[in-house]
Parts: sequence; structure tokens; C-alpha cells
Amino acid sequence: MWLDKILTFLVPKDKKFFALFAKDAANLVEISKALVEFVNSHSIEKRQENLRRIHDLEHVGDNITHEIMTELSTNFITPFDREDIHYLATSIDDIADYIYSAAKKIELYKIEEISPAIKKLAELIEKSCNEINVAVFDLRSLDNVVRIKEACVRINSLENHADDIYHGAIAELFDKETNAVTVIKYQDILIALETATDKCEDVANVIETILVKNS
Amino acid sequence: MWLDKILTFLVPKDKKFFALFAKDAANLVEISKALVEFVNSHSIEKRQENLRRIHDLEHVGDNITHEIMTELSTNFITPFDREDIHYLATSIDDIADYIYSAAKKIELYKIEEISPAIKKLAELIEKSCNEINVAVFDLRSLDNVVRIKEACVRINSLENHADDIYHGAIAELFDKETNAVTVIKYQDILIALETATDKCEDVANVIETILVKNS
Amino acid sequence: MWLDKILTFLVPKDKKFFALFAKDAANLVEISKALVEFVNSHSIEKRQENLRRIHDLEHVGDNITHEIMTELSTNFITPFDREDIHYLATSIDDIADYIYSAAKKIELYKIEEISPAIKKLAELIEKSCNEINVAVFDLRSLDNVVRIKEACVRINSLENHADDIYHGAIAELFDKETNAVTVIKYQDILIALETATDKCEDVANVIETILVKNS
Repeated sequence: MWLDKILTFLVPKDKKFFALFAKDAANLVEISKALVEFVNSHSIEKRQENLRRIHDLEHVGDNITHEIMTELSTNFITPFDREDIHYLATSIDDIADYIYSAAKKIELYKIEEISPAIKKLAELIEKSCNEINVAVFDLRSLDNVVRIKEACVRINSLENHADDIYHGAIAELFDKETNAVTVIKYQDILIALETATDKCEDVANVIETILVKNS
Repeated sequence: MWLDKILTFLVPKDKKFFALFAKDAANLVEISKALVEFVNSHSIEKRQENLRRIHDLEHVGDNITHEIMTELSTNFITPFDREDIHYLATSIDDIADYIYSAAKKIELYKIEEISPAIKKLAELIEKSCNEINVAVFDLRSLDNVVRIKEACVRINSLENHADDIYHGAIAELFDKETNAVTVIKYQDILIALETATDKCEDVANVIETILVKNS
Repeated sequence: MWLDKILTFLVPKDKKFFALFAKDAANLVEISKALVEFVNSHSIEKRQENLRRIHDLEHVGDNITHEIMTELSTNFITPFDREDIHYLATSIDDIADYIYSAAKKIELYKIEEISPAIKKLAELIEKSCNEINVAVFDLRSLDNVVRIKEACVRINSLENHADDIYHGAIAELFDKETNAVTVIKYQDILIALETATDKCEDVANVIETILVKNS
């Protein structure tokens, strides 16, 4: 680690990582937008089109993750600690996976009525992904630490909000729904969406770790 | 790593980590006690009070985890390998999360009758957390390796016991319960409790790794 | 890392890791075979016998994982990066765990009719484990990189196939099954099997990382 630190002064910081993470975060914003459009689709055709788009974007994200990991494997110098880069890439990938998984479940389970809680969670995920985009972009220079920190605080509070929505929806589901298969379906979808916001919080946490280490 | 080893002889071991882990493990014992009281509450009010207490303690634990991670990010010298400290803190945090999650589910699902299996699992979790407390405290000096090892063995055997209770309860649930929504609820709670004991085993495993590396 | 690289030229590569991983992969092949036999058992007795065999082999695997981790803790020089060895061992262990978990659920839930999707997934898991065995064995010399890469490609395509089978089975289950408890049971088993193939993909990914780093 001390060697890394010294060499960081001698060698220009690898710009490639920042370019890749910027691409990754921008792609995540697109996925989360597609999710919001998916849950608000007014026709089956529109919904299927949005699901295909989520799937395609998730695949684009997979390739970016793979590129980051290859860079990590072959680069001696990294702008931040290797394990933090790894964790950041993995967490962004996880968010995309859970978004796709939630949308796919909605299709597989032939959900006709998208509940208000599902729509609200999709919206909170989109907001969190926008904040992630801000924070990840600013990691590039680190001269805007306050802006990064504020984005992280907002991601945490969006996750708390999502938690409340999730708990309320689960309580209502078990309280009112008598069809057990319907309970299983909605519970499964709600869990996938809520887990996506947990993964957003993981991103905020690792970014905060990076700030602590580089302050 | 070799540098770490050499420097360990020159610099007094950082006492801060031990103090933080001791606090973390003591807090975990409190959470597990609160869980046992929660599942044995004789009134709704008492139960809600215990849930609030679990929630508060889980929050205290979150802050301790955060402190450990910050120490880890900013300290060059650590008493054990960084990844082991990270894993130990994460696993203790996970136990607290699953305890809170199980209790929260019991409330969300409006479970009136706490089954004997749930009570038994809560009790096994409390016992495991007590053993974790012993083992973590003794990491401080490492001159009581036998006591640490024995605690780890007991954690493993408590996990095996929990596994049997869990499997028995699941088999009975699917065998006898005809209301599918009830099946979902109890299965969900049992999984959360059983996962808490898995996380206790993770703690025992990482402590054993630390012993191997420092023997 | 640079020190590791230099020393790798001075010290003969530790053969012990390769021997342990070869044993681990060969054991995994046995577990996957036992799973295929389990789902195709023609009598309750035969099924129970196969479950016991899976359990025993999973226990053997646990011990090999433990040996690898102890080697990792006590060896200064490792043939590949420590984190990759750790991840490879953990992923192989996870595959075995999910195989046992799926089989155990089939027993706990008293499933009488093993569906074609379950049989097909078991078969795909066995094929993936055979490919893992090829790839892990060839890591020993790295002079057959093409063969390792081809095995990894096949593992990825087997996982895609498993994904399709899983999605089809889930869609059909929710479409046709009216008994909610039956839905829970089959969904649970299908998830465990599908997760086993995900873990096979994790093995392929870490092997590809090892190849990138050592090319």
C-alpha cells in the first residue's frame, strides 16, 4: 500500500478506470429509467419492449464490469485500493441485476396490476442511481468531496425511505391478500426491488470508504 | 504482509481494534438477549418494546461497525490481517441484521403464536453470541488460545443444533400447515433465524483463521 | 505483488494447492453425479441413500475447503493471487452447498414427483461440474490455456441454458399450479438448483481472472 501511494505521485493516475466507472454509472441511470418506464407501461407491448431494454442494458453493464475487472487484473497501479474498485464495480453490477430480476419476475408472474409500492420503489431506485452517477463521476478529481458526500447521504436516506415503503407493502400484503400465490409473487418482487436499494447503499458505503482513505 | 509482521514487533499493537470489537461483541450479546425476551414477551406492548430495543441496539452495532471500518481504512498497522478484521466486523454486523430482520418479520406478519422452534432458535442464537463474546474478547492477548478454540467449537455445534431444529420445523410446517400464507410467514422467519446462526459460524471460522495465522 | 512475482521464479510453485483443488473438483463431480442419481431414484430407499451420499460428499468437500484455507493462511507463496484462490475455493464449496440444499429440500418437502425441470437442472449442474473439473485440473500447468478457456465458455453457456429452464419452470409453476404450498416447495427447489449453476459461473469467472493475470 505504501508503495502504491509513492508510485501514485510518479505515475499519472490511470484515467481508464474513471472512464469505465463513468460509463458504468451512466448505464445504470439508463437501466433505472427503463425500470420506471417498465412499471408505468400502458400496454403489454410497451412493457415487453421496456423489459427487453432493461435486459440489453444489463448486458451492457455486464461487459463494463468485465472490462473493469480485466483492468484491475492487469494494472499494477490503480487510483484507489484494489478491493474498493472491485467492490464498487460488483455493487453497481448487483443493482443492475436486481433491477432486471424484479422486472423479469413481474413478467414471469404475469402481474397485471403494478401496485403503488412497486412504482414507488422503482422511482426511489431511479433517484438513487442518479445520485450514484453524481458521486461516481466526481470520484475522478476528488476536489468536490462535499458534493460526493452529499450524494452518499441522499442515497442512504433514499434507502431508508425504500425500507419503509417495503415494510408497509409487506404488512399490507400479508394483511389483506388471501390468495397465497399472489402473496408469493408480490413478496418476491418487493424483495428484489428493496435489495436493489440495499445495493445502492453498498455503493454509497464503498465511496465513503474511498473518501476516508484518500482524505 | 512481511512488513506488517516486522512492524508488529516495533509498534505496540493497536488497542483500538480490540476495544471496538469488545464493544461490538458485548452489544451483540445484548441484541441476542433482547431477541429471547422478544419471542417470550407476554403482551403486545412488551413485544413492541423489545422490538424497539433490538432496533436501537442494531443501530448501535451499525455505528461500531462503521468505526471499525474507518479505523481499518486509516490505520497502516492492524493487529491481524486486514481482510480478517473486515470479515469479522461484517459477520458480527450480519448476525445483528438477521436478528432484527427475524423480529421485524414476526411483527410485520402479525404472528400471534411464537412456535417452540422459533423460541429454541432464539435461545441458540443467544448462546452463540455469548460464545462469540468470549472468543472475541480473548483475541486481545492470544494467550488463551485454548479458550478461544473451545468457544469456536461450541459455536459450530450450536449451529448444527440450530440446523436440526430448523429442518425439523420446516418439515413439520410443510407437513401440517394447510394455510399457505402461514407457511410463507413461518418459513421466512425460520430462515432468518437459521441464517443468523450461520453467520455466528462465519465468526467462528474467521476467528479460527486468525488463530492459524498467528500461531 | 511484485515481490510475489519475483519469488515465484525462485521458489518452485507450491504443488499442494493444485493437489487440493484437483481433489476438490473431483469431489464436486461426485456430488453432482449423486444429485443426478438422487433425482432419478426409483425408490424412496434409493433416494435416501443418494441423499446420504450427497451429504457425506459435501462434508468431504468442507474438509478440503478447510485444508485450502489453512494452506492459504500459512503459506507466504501461492501459485495465484490469494484472493483468487480464496474465491475459487469458496465458489466450489458454494456449489456443493446448493446441491445438498436442493436435495435436502426435496426430502424435507416430501416431493414425490421430481419434475422434468428439476431433472434437467441436475443434469446441467453435472455437466458444469465436469467442465470445472477439466478447467481446475489444467490450472496446474497453464500450458493448456485454450482448453481451460473452452471449458469456461461451456460453463457460461450451461448457465444460460439453466436460466432458461428455470424461467420456463417458474412461469409454468405460477401459471398452472393452484396449490400455493406446492408452488412454494417447487420454487424453493428450483431456486437452489439455479443458484448452483450461478456458482458454477462464478468458478468460470475466477478462473478467467487467473488466466488474465497469468498470461
